[in-house]
Amino acid sequence: MKLVVMKFGGSSVANAEKVKHVAGRVIEKKKGGYGVVVVVSAPGDMTDDLIEMAKGVTQDPPPREMDMLLATGEQASIALLGMALHAKGQDAISLTGPQAGIFADHDHTRARIVQIEPKKINFELKKGRVVVVAGFQGINPNQDITTLGRGGSDLTAIALAAALKADLCEIYTDVEGVYTTDPRVVPDARKLDEISYDEMLELAGAGAQVMQGRSVEVAKKFNVVFEVRSTFSQRPGTRVHKEVSKMEEVIVSGIALDRKQAKVSLVEIPDKPGVAAKMFSALAKAAINVDMIIQSQALDQSNDISFTVGESDLKKTLAALEPVRESLGAKDLLHDASIAKVAIVGVGMRSHPGVAARMFQALADNKINIQMISTSEIKIACVISRDQVDNAVKVLHKEFKLDKIKK
Amino acid sequence: MKLVVMKFGGSSVANAEKVKHVAGRVIEKKKGGYGVVVVVSAPGDMTDDLIEMAKGVTQDPPPREMDMLLATGEQASIALLGMALHAKGQDAISLTGPQAGIFADHDHTRARIVQIEPKKINFELKKGRVVVVAGFQGINPNQDITTLGRGGSDLTAIALAAALKADLCEIYTDVEGVYTTDPRVVPDARKLDEISYDEMLELAGAGAQVMQGRSVEVAKKFNVVFEVRSTFSQRPGTRVHKEVSKMEEVIVSGIALDRKQAKVSLVEIPDKPGVAAKMFSALAKAAINVDMIIQSQALDQSNDISFTVGESDLKKTLAALEPVRESLGAKDLLHDASIAKVAIVGVGMRSHPGVAARMFQALADNKINIQMISTSEIKIACVISRDQVDNAVKVLHKEFKLDKIKK
Repeated sequence: MKLVVMKFGGSSVANAEKVKHVAGRVIEKKKGGYGVVVVVSAPGDMTDDLIEMAKGVTQDPPPREMDMLLATGEQASIALLGMALHAKGQDAISLTGPQAGIFADHDHTRARIVQIEPKKINFELKKGRVVVVAGFQGINPNQDITTLGRGGSDLTAIALAAALKADLCEIYTDVEGVYTTDPRVVPDARKLDEISYDEMLELAGAGAQVMQGRSVEVAKKFNVVFEVRSTFSQRPGTRVHKEVSKMEEVIVSGIALDRKQAKVSLVEIPDKPGVAAKMFSALAKAAINVDMIIQSQALDQSNDISFTVGESDLKKTLAALEPVRESLGAKDLLHDASIAKVAIVGVGMRSHPGVAARMFQALADNKINIQMISTSEIKIACVISRDQVDNAVKVLHKEFKLDKIKK
Repeated sequence: MKLVVMKFGGSSVANAEKVKHVAGRVIEKKKGGYGVVVVVSAPGDMTDDLIEMAKGVTQDPPPREMDMLLATGEQASIALLGMALHAKGQDAISLTGPQAGIFADHDHTRARIVQIEPKKINFELKKGRVVVVAGFQGINPNQDITTLGRGGSDLTAIALAAALKADLCEIYTDVEGVYTTDPRVVPDARKLDEISYDEMLELAGAGAQVMQGRSVEVAKKFNVVFEVRSTFSQRPGTRVHKEVSKMEEVIVSGIALDRKQAKVSLVEIPDKPGVAAKMFSALAKAAINVDMIIQSQALDQSNDISFTVGESDLKKTLAALEPVRESLGAKDLLHDASIAKVAIVGVGMRSHPGVAARMFQALADNKINIQMISTSEIKIACVISRDQVDNAVKVLHKEFKLDKIKK
């Protein structure tokens, strides 16, 4: 029998009606002749509510106890979906992450999956049951419940699909798939039928919110083909799989934007070796993720170093760097929280020269000033003023004819 | 080191402030030189809220999935109390029922504890940690989470105290202990310093709401001395232990009342063997608990059988008995939902004759008509009209001088 892993996010199981709807989708699939494993997240805002409860008790909860608390959200979801399936006449069994054989490491609140032992799942599938697995959680070598951090339920689904050698992995969400860009910005944005892992990774890294990069990386590593599709529609979604040659015919697959960026610059740093190392190890210590980094050297041999961080990390970043500025004898620590990032992504770039020039020209023609640039093999990202980002996305969407591509 | 098991009910951990208060009580005890195991229930109304969620999905949830859902309540409590203890500088670890080694049987939603393997608890106690255990839950031989039914957290505490050979077991609640009767009915009601297991059992069976009988039975079986006391006061509560001879000096320890009773009578049943068996097996099949039973035989050899049930079971009872009435050819099936039960309880009754007569006389002097009587070695219970029950309790409390006893 063919096997499918279906994953439903929190918004898909936010209340009793939605849980029943999801049960209906699962049963359709089962009746289509599939063995079905379902992975669910906590209902709606429950995870946020639990975090609020914890904050009422202490501002600094121990991570092990936080995991004990947060794991109840997914456990409630699997029980409710199990009930809904039974009520519709479908035999089903819910399993917590530990019961499902999902073994994780010790890193509470952001553990990695180290192994899956799907004996119990296979045993229940053989009975013809739908197996409902709690996403986002596993068990560590201490027999403690651990959670997998942001995007953890996607990760559970992808890892289960790999371990079970599933024929299909479907990530159900409240959008219809992966779009050429944010449809709220560009009404012409088009749903993509397929996309490569690498493109999906670059889109996620550049702020497209469909899925966390780590789940895509695991899918790529284990070659799990998955489909991002809508819980509330029957239309096919976007298939994500390894690159095939015909993908290269498309130069740019999508445009990502991230409004919540901030730029920080340390200026006039006397030239000494190890300057950058000092700065970025201070930031790493404070657990701040840095994105683009630009270093420029002036004629007088002093350096300027600029980089971008998520806007929510700006305060922490400045606090972590002020002592570094002093010890290095740099003149100033500047910041700008009115920037945004726009990026074009596509595996076709590699075989089509001149893509960067086309991007920069299109922005220049529309009086959009580029403050920073970073590139990878399949992505070109620019930092621009935040108030110009919507226009930039529209300009680029048109320039690379994303509204028109048909395959 | 001496060991104490402290149990806190749902009202004691209903919100963040209360959880912090409980943490304070636990730390006091730890500083008093005890090793401490804490058992907690789900916060406040959470169990009821979860049941409501389930009902939104289906009116008839499978018991296994119901347990999966309900167990999240206690899991949230242990995590929050674990956090509160850490925040106050006390090392602590929370354990779910399964993690704590509480093994239960297959009877979902009302399982019995079959064994406790406290290896993990002892391991953590040796590290100086407070161990916070989820009440009301265990793991069955299928590795499924099961819940223990009403009063399950008390049961967890008593069973843990027995398995750990604890020196003390404290049941914290929102009253100060066990009273001679309901203080809302008799303002003179007095908190008892001590009471025997059997008296406590009879009081629970007769409607005193402090604790479920099954927990007291387990305590009696394993000779676990426990104390019922208040979460919100430092005053000593009521110690419950095995009978000692001086207890017999007190004729009546307490008076229980239960307003929510109903009487059902099957009248003029043609005399045949097996009449009562047919009736009560029909009720057992419908899972109805029957309390007092009275059978009387008329001169014409026809029988009347009357019994009492909880008022909430009345409808179910009549539905279950109507077919029995027909098949037995009984004349009528009558019911009365305006009755109540009042009972006097005391181990001293055994050695003091005439207690029943004194009770009946006191009621008669106050024009309170007795409809049914049942007795055990240490209890005399009467069914009376519901509108007379408050007065009956007052009369009996005075008759047996419960407001005046000092030990």
